[in-house]
Amino acid sequence: MCVLGLGLIGGSLMRAASAAGHPVFGYNRSVDGAKAAQFDGFEASTDLTATLQQAAETEALIVVAVPMPAVPTMLSHIADTAPLNPLTDVISVKGAVLDAVRQAGLLANYVGGHPMTGTAHSGWSAGRTDLFEDAAWVLSVDDHVDVQVWTQVMNLALDCGSFVVPARSDEHDAAAAAISHLPHLLAESLAVTAGEVPLAFALAAGSFRDGTRVAATAPDLVRAMCEANSSDLVPLLDQAIEQLTSARHSLAESQSVSELVEAGHAARIRYDSFSRPDILTITLDEPDWRAELAAAGRAGGVIRSALPGPGNRR
Amino acid sequence: MCVLGLGLIGGSLMRAASAAGHPVFGYNRSVDGAKAAQFDGFEASTDLTATLQQAAETEALIVVAVPMPAVPTMLSHIADTAPLNPLTDVISVKGAVLDAVRQAGLLANYVGGHPMTGTAHSGWSAGRTDLFEDAAWVLSVDDHVDVQVWTQVMNLALDCGSFVVPARSDEHDAAAAAISHLPHLLAESLAVTAGEVPLAFALAAGSFRDGTRVAATAPDLVRAMCEANSSDLVPLLDQAIEQLTSARHSLAESQSVSELVEAGHAARIRYDSFSRPDILTITLDEPDWRAELAAAGRAGGVIRSALPGPGNRR
Repeated sequence: MCVLGLGLIGGSLMRAASAAGHPVFGYNRSVDGAKAAQFDGFEASTDLTATLQQAAETEALIVVAVPMPAVPTMLSHIADTAPLNPLTDVISVKGAVLDAVRQAGLLANYVGGHPMTGTAHSGWSAGRTDLFEDAAWVLSVDDHVDVQVWTQVMNLALDCGSFVVPARSDEHDAAAAAISHLPHLLAESLAVTAGEVPLAFALAAGSFRDGTRVAATAPDLVRAMCEANSSDLVPLLDQAIEQLTSARHSLAESQSVSELVEAGHAARIRYDSFSRPDILTITLDEPDWRAELAAAGRAGGVIRSALPGPGNRR
Repeated sequence: MCVLGLGLIGGSLMRAASAAGHPVFGYNRSVDGAKAAQFDGFEASTDLTATLQQAAETEALIVVAVPMPAVPTMLSHIADTAPLNPLTDVISVKGAVLDAVRQAGLLANYVGGHPMTGTAHSGWSAGRTDLFEDAAWVLSVDDHVDVQVWTQVMNLALDCGSFVVPARSDEHDAAAAAISHLPHLLAESLAVTAGEVPLAFALAAGSFRDGTRVAATAPDLVRAMCEANSSDLVPLLDQAIEQLTSARHSLAESQSVSELVEAGHAARIRYDSFSRPDILTITLDEPDWRAELAAAGRAGGVIRSALPGPGNRR
């Protein structure tokens, strides 16, 4: 396996895959990061071409773990040197990566991935072998995906201790807007609004702390994820604004926030009782396996042990 | 001390004050609640007139601990039977109680209070002696408050293990709108919006869970607090809607949420570094002691040990 980018996620993946018995080597742009990985006993290089040549020779699974802005350049290097390798990534937006992969001509062997884990820190030294334990690792089941590559990435995710959530890239991005990007903007707005009220910080307790926790995230990270997913985020912002505006008028005119409060409570209770059944009955060589996995994932299904199929040589 | 209403807060107060050595008796509307308190060794009655007569005879501090809708009736009983007793309350809105107290002709001996604590449960059996430990207990320093009564309630709060935050009733209510009522409505809106996106619950993690936690609160409680404080909540809702609308346009038109994200992060960081200095240098018989305490509370100051003053006989 070949990991490109040895930051928090890439570096943790190198550790976790190695601990699970996978042969792993990797590339890091900065000398400091590569040296730190070498010091910890891993095979890491700052020579991208040599690393990709090694990947091509060993037919290694290539994992792109660089920030989104660096992805297109990285993909063009891969297209030059290792165009036939199985390819995945660990980036938190999936539609933009999919487009870049298509433009680089690498679609045939690409399966998008997003391990939903992380910490507030970054860099090789922040990495942890157990970062993926019990995490949801989204694997894309877009129409083009190859069953052999999909199986290979599924096995990697399971070997790292994650469970796999199958999803289409476009649905992943819409869901991420709803459960991550919108909450960040609401938290920012709450912090700003309360920050202007005298005495508010003096009385702030659980509701405020929980509601603004993610506003402590570094602004660059929040901007990067919201702005990379604007086409999914804008319509959700419109919905939230419309609901709040309706509640505001109902409160001002008839002293009631009943409609919003009842609907919000019902939704949260549905979430609390949302079950995560194991996906057991889908085989990876049946017709429509991609659509079946997408439907199962949408319904809460997760893969905790490898599904049978032609690509699964385990 | 006389506690009217032996639910979660009133019942916990009876336990905590008694444990601190205060003689305590109380009234509860329901026979079950009063009997449960008696069974636990407390003096509790369902006879309101007899309880208030006892309060008048012993010059006890009366604590109103009934829900807001029951407050005006309770105050008229107090005005009939124990109009000269020192009077406080433990209700989460302060302006509405202040108005009711004024209408009942009981303003002279009234100091509003709000211990900022609670659990998800209610009733006598949910009460706990340590419910007030390390909690902020807001005491109003409105222009009318009497220093003797204020000192008496301050000592009660400190004896129960709380620290006292001095605040004007209007500022309390504006702050509560910002740090409690607005967060509830934002959480409801997030739950509703995400609940309509396929796959969202399947991918939901920390940001969504934190952002919607308070949407699990019983709708009646959320409605009661938001609707009782609509005059403070509506302008804050307008501000939040305006910020989100501005961010929405900036995101759609120039792919940027910079302004909201930078401001939200800055506000949250200010909150994280907000200090809670002890109020030590204000004496309760100096001129403008109410305004000085209000300013100190606004700046984050808290009272952890009794301030000196004419009413403080400890």
